[in-house]
Amino acid sequence: MRAIQITEFGGPEVLRLTDLPDPEPGTGELLVEVSRAGINYADTHQAENSYLSATSLPLVPGGEVVGRAADGRRVVALCGTGGYAERAVAPTAMAWEVPDAVDDVAALGMIVQGATAWVLLRRNVHLQPGESVVVHAAAGGVGTLAIQLARAWGAGRIIATASSEEKRRLALELGADVAVDAGAEDMKAALIEANGGRRVDVVLEMTGGTVTDQSLAALAPFGRLAFYGMASRVPPRPVRPESLMSHSTTISGMWLAHVFRLPGDVMGTALKELFGLVADGRLRVISGGEYGLSEARRAHEDMRARRTTGKLVLDPAR
Amino acid sequence: MRAIQITEFGGPEVLRLTDLPDPEPGTGELLVEVSRAGINYADTHQAENSYLSATSLPLVPGGEVVGRAADGRRVVALCGTGGYAERAVAPTAMAWEVPDAVDDVAALGMIVQGATAWVLLRRNVHLQPGESVVVHAAAGGVGTLAIQLARAWGAGRIIATASSEEKRRLALELGADVAVDAGAEDMKAALIEANGGRRVDVVLEMTGGTVTDQSLAALAPFGRLAFYGMASRVPPRPVRPESLMSHSTTISGMWLAHVFRLPGDVMGTALKELFGLVADGRLRVISGGEYGLSEARRAHEDMRARRTTGKLVLDPAR
Repeated sequence: MRAIQITEFGGPEVLRLTDLPDPEPGTGELLVEVSRAGINYADTHQAENSYLSATSLPLVPGGEVVGRAADGRRVVALCGTGGYAERAVAPTAMAWEVPDAVDDVAALGMIVQGATAWVLLRRNVHLQPGESVVVHAAAGGVGTLAIQLARAWGAGRIIATASSEEKRRLALELGADVAVDAGAEDMKAALIEANGGRRVDVVLEMTGGTVTDQSLAALAPFGRLAFYGMASRVPPRPVRPESLMSHSTTISGMWLAHVFRLPGDVMGTALKELFGLVADGRLRVISGGEYGLSEARRAHEDMRARRTTGKLVLDPAR
Repeated sequence: MRAIQITEFGGPEVLRLTDLPDPEPGTGELLVEVSRAGINYADTHQAENSYLSATSLPLVPGGEVVGRAADGRRVVALCGTGGYAERAVAPTAMAWEVPDAVDDVAALGMIVQGATAWVLLRRNVHLQPGESVVVHAAAGGVGTLAIQLARAWGAGRIIATASSEEKRRLALELGADVAVDAGAEDMKAALIEANGGRRVDVVLEMTGGTVTDQSLAALAPFGRLAFYGMASRVPPRPVRPESLMSHSTTISGMWLAHVFRLPGDVMGTALKELFGLVADGRLRVISGGEYGLSEARRAHEDMRARRTTGKLVLDPAR
């Protein structure tokens, strides 16, 4: 089968199209005939071995696929690795049936980005109706969905940040009340100004560096910042626990993989609610473009250069 | 009237009994004929000017009183300062009527320690039924109540830490499943062992230093540590936000004063529920001893030396 294989760690240039034997499902696994494979920012870390979990070589990258199982069911699945290929193997427990009303791109948009936004708002920050919410990287995969979920769940003022006029316009279209330039010199002041002079209740943050530092400083009493990525690759300043007492603020880390260690079927619950919102037309996935498998390198280049908006997918047939 | 007045900052020795004119309530304030004044750990910080908010001199310390208002109602009130006296003034909005079934010590035990435990569990860590809860300083004012509230609200395993055999016995009597020596060399290992080999879901922490560091390291995926004091006066290590992603953990600061900046009557809601639990016999305040006003210095000495257990009060009549 056609697949992308990495034999050395590095940038987008290490993603090379090759021919490999079909993978064989073991006990508790299923084979998926891949219709579309999702591309995630995490894949760029995986390729350069800078991800939260270490990677070994050779590697077929790609953690999510949508397609047909051998029994004919249409499923979206988390496969860990091996997604950038015509066929992929996933644990049966990591595959969920997709309603017909949800298309391939939407299904792939829910399994990581949608579930991430759901978990951040429900489990990390416990969004309450009426609260102000800052969504950084608002035009990204998680950001576009977080805006819509916050709106659907009764948030007060939703403040988006994004790096271009076009991305800010998208955030406003999706339900943000105001959009702030992600390059603002003084992000704390920009967020408070965007919130009508008040400190903010909730921040969803995945960029790192001074954006994290200044967003924390903009939190209202009992405000919560959820930190779920560091796209700038610049760490925020360390946080002194005693400083969190000076405004009763909270900082929360989130990596979706840990959801699977929680009791109860959190992913199943999240996906059921998310697919329902998609089917009802209340939640839409922004398509960021479809690339052929042979164009995987260009997809990573576009993503790392922040040229993309919305969900990127690979078509293994080309 | 008799009162304790501080004219210079310092340790317990600066608490001196003196005679002062009665305070006069202004608009929006009420005068309380003090039946008992509560003593809080924060008062020791106030005396040495190391509290979260700066203090000016001369000062009558003491932030909470129970007694009669001029209209005859029995109230418990937050007065900011001025509590260590025969009469104190409090904002009307910071005084709550006390049901007859709740005695003076219990009323004083609820207004800061009870409300703190309530807010920590409900607003900071969002305790879920079945979750494991570590209560540090378990024999203290907040600790003794947090154990009972966690039990009443369906916590799973409750792990107490305390510095003496006697304090650990008290924690077990109040509903903890296991009690750990607060001086454990490796607190992370001790907590995980006390939880049957599993990482812990929730930690309530007010001591600081390595206890905070190691408790954070013992958190399960999606575990939350609420930091609401630093009794050891040793700061914990700063926390790298990206490290919170490696177990999807949360650290949350809490200072009760910020509750008053939240929308809705959070304190009123908390006290109503707490007084109900006290009246039903499901929540009891451990009396840590009653001191005369002239013994305020000794009360602070005992508290700083960690010789006390439970709620300390001053009787202004002696």
